[in-house]
Amino acid sequence: MRQSTRQVMVGNVPIGAGAPITVQSMTNTDTRDIAATREQIEALAAAGCDFVRVAVPDQKAAQALSSLVEHSPVPLVADIHFNHRLALRSLEAGVHKLRLNPGNIGSEDKVREVVKAAQERKVPIRIGVNSGSVSSALLARYGRTATAIVESALEHIAIFEKLNFFDIVVSLKSTEVEMTVAAYEELSKRVPYPTHIGITEAGTKWFGTIKSAAGLGALLSRGLGDTLRVSLTADPVEEVKVGWAILSALGLRQRGPVFISCPTCGRTEIDLEGIAAEVEKRLSDFPLPITIAVMGCVVNGPGEARYADLGITGGKGVGLVFRHGQILRKVPETELVDALVAEANNLLAER
Amino acid sequence: MRQSTRQVMVGNVPIGAGAPITVQSMTNTDTRDIAATREQIEALAAAGCDFVRVAVPDQKAAQALSSLVEHSPVPLVADIHFNHRLALRSLEAGVHKLRLNPGNIGSEDKVREVVKAAQERKVPIRIGVNSGSVSSALLARYGRTATAIVESALEHIAIFEKLNFFDIVVSLKSTEVEMTVAAYEELSKRVPYPTHIGITEAGTKWFGTIKSAAGLGALLSRGLGDTLRVSLTADPVEEVKVGWAILSALGLRQRGPVFISCPTCGRTEIDLEGIAAEVEKRLSDFPLPITIAVMGCVVNGPGEARYADLGITGGKGVGLVFRHGQILRKVPETELVDALVAEANNLLAER
Repeated sequence: MRQSTRQVMVGNVPIGAGAPITVQSMTNTDTRDIAATREQIEALAAAGCDFVRVAVPDQKAAQALSSLVEHSPVPLVADIHFNHRLALRSLEAGVHKLRLNPGNIGSEDKVREVVKAAQERKVPIRIGVNSGSVSSALLARYGRTATAIVESALEHIAIFEKLNFFDIVVSLKSTEVEMTVAAYEELSKRVPYPTHIGITEAGTKWFGTIKSAAGLGALLSRGLGDTLRVSLTADPVEEVKVGWAILSALGLRQRGPVFISCPTCGRTEIDLEGIAAEVEKRLSDFPLPITIAVMGCVVNGPGEARYADLGITGGKGVGLVFRHGQILRKVPETELVDALVAEANNLLAER
Repeated sequence: MRQSTRQVMVGNVPIGAGAPITVQSMTNTDTRDIAATREQIEALAAAGCDFVRVAVPDQKAAQALSSLVEHSPVPLVADIHFNHRLALRSLEAGVHKLRLNPGNIGSEDKVREVVKAAQERKVPIRIGVNSGSVSSALLARYGRTATAIVESALEHIAIFEKLNFFDIVVSLKSTEVEMTVAAYEELSKRVPYPTHIGITEAGTKWFGTIKSAAGLGALLSRGLGDTLRVSLTADPVEEVKVGWAILSALGLRQRGPVFISCPTCGRTEIDLEGIAAEVEKRLSDFPLPITIAVMGCVVNGPGEARYADLGITGGKGVGLVFRHGQILRKVPETELVDALVAEANNLLAER
């Protein structure tokens, strides 16, 4: 069961309190390059990114935000470090969320100014703590532990709460999965705010995908996390695809079809790897959130494929097409993919 | 903390009771093709597969096992369905583990014969239940639930226990991650046997990798699982690589270096994606289990890279090389990878 949290709105997109878990990413263009950043925001939105974060390192980047917000098909989040003027400019430009740690932007007056402007525009703020940014005082007291990360977040949260600002999202990141899980578990017992989850500096595309999936699987399967970002050293569109795949894999939210398929083994009598890859390719843009099974094993295949919306299973050059557990037809192996795609289109026509 | 389980031995490789979590896979060659199967077993062992399972669908496959066992660099597991004679032949051939469900091979006499032969050779047996193979009686009673899967396993376990056979490994697989987690949690409260974990029919290479990582992350982070197999519709060597990456990502077991790297963002001022990919490629066969950080962000980079064995971080054409938190040198961006590789080799020479 998902942890119960408060809800905040990022433009028209809710986070927390049972809302669908959102997938986000961050542009890696120079924010001041409006054309390139707009193009990337559009590519991210097309891939299913619920809202997009952009770095705001200076005034020129903050100035670019008005145009980016105006043309973006999804809400935008401004990523601010240290400088409250950049936060104020971003709010004026109409961003829908800030990422800002109040303990890092100077005096209480500066924080008060930002909070007032955010409240007027109903803009939530994410506090983002990671194990590399914990203060030396907290490190000295708690060591390099999950508690140190949580206490660091609680310090920032206390600054906002004192100013009656509660539209807070919190992220707690560590490069270590175990510590990240422990930190979010501890935080969920202390405060009611929705959380942004991710494994920071997860790594290269292949290893980072695996590390993010393992870490987010650990968190999400415990009901932790209201919005997620997969961090990869790769095109951010890939982050969005992986994010959706993790949610699909866990049965939490689905975009398009999910494919299940047998591992090939010594019993496999058809070209399963080729068939599965062709099915995934031909139906990758299919709009319905259905489950499609591609099975090559007479031992486990039929049993598992029963529960899929559509399925194929085969052996020795012939195959069967299933739909909701019913055999539709028997076809030669060479026509199996065509037959499956035809049935998928039948399903689409009916709905 | 890992769940406490009994220990069994697969040849010289322990499973359970705190032993390192093993990575396994299964050949997808025709077992009767001895040359092809030997070649694949060797490739799997070279990739770090702790033991290899082979399908034994008929007597000819069982006959091939003697030669396969003799030449294999790692223990072998015979995968048997329905036929107790194939189990007996496999044991005679010297396999180190069986995968066999006693409720599916016929009379109690047949089970007794297999158990006796396994006991004589100290060979453990894995009971493998998946949601597609649960009996209709259990489905009628418990529905399509985790409990139905667990009760199915307990029926098979009871057959072995009645014959005083306890060298049991259990796997409980469902295509649904949530149900798989619930089933292993329930089983761990009922019996002390070590478990083989995996997400069955996980799917195509990309989606299956993500689904396996998310599901195994959920299980392993709860201390569940003593040996794992990643199922992919792909070359089984890829299953082994993904298995190791999952264990590395969770900090449970490491083979070679782990790379952490920043997502690129609007603040990145070096070609981080290119540098990270080059580092991963040049150090992929590096033998020490160290952590290498490739960071491009002046905000989070230095803090995170502190804890890595080796790290590089950069901006505006120049970079720093770190070792255990100490800056070693400042080099031009173009020499950053060479400098890192040189330091890795220094580390290797010292150990």
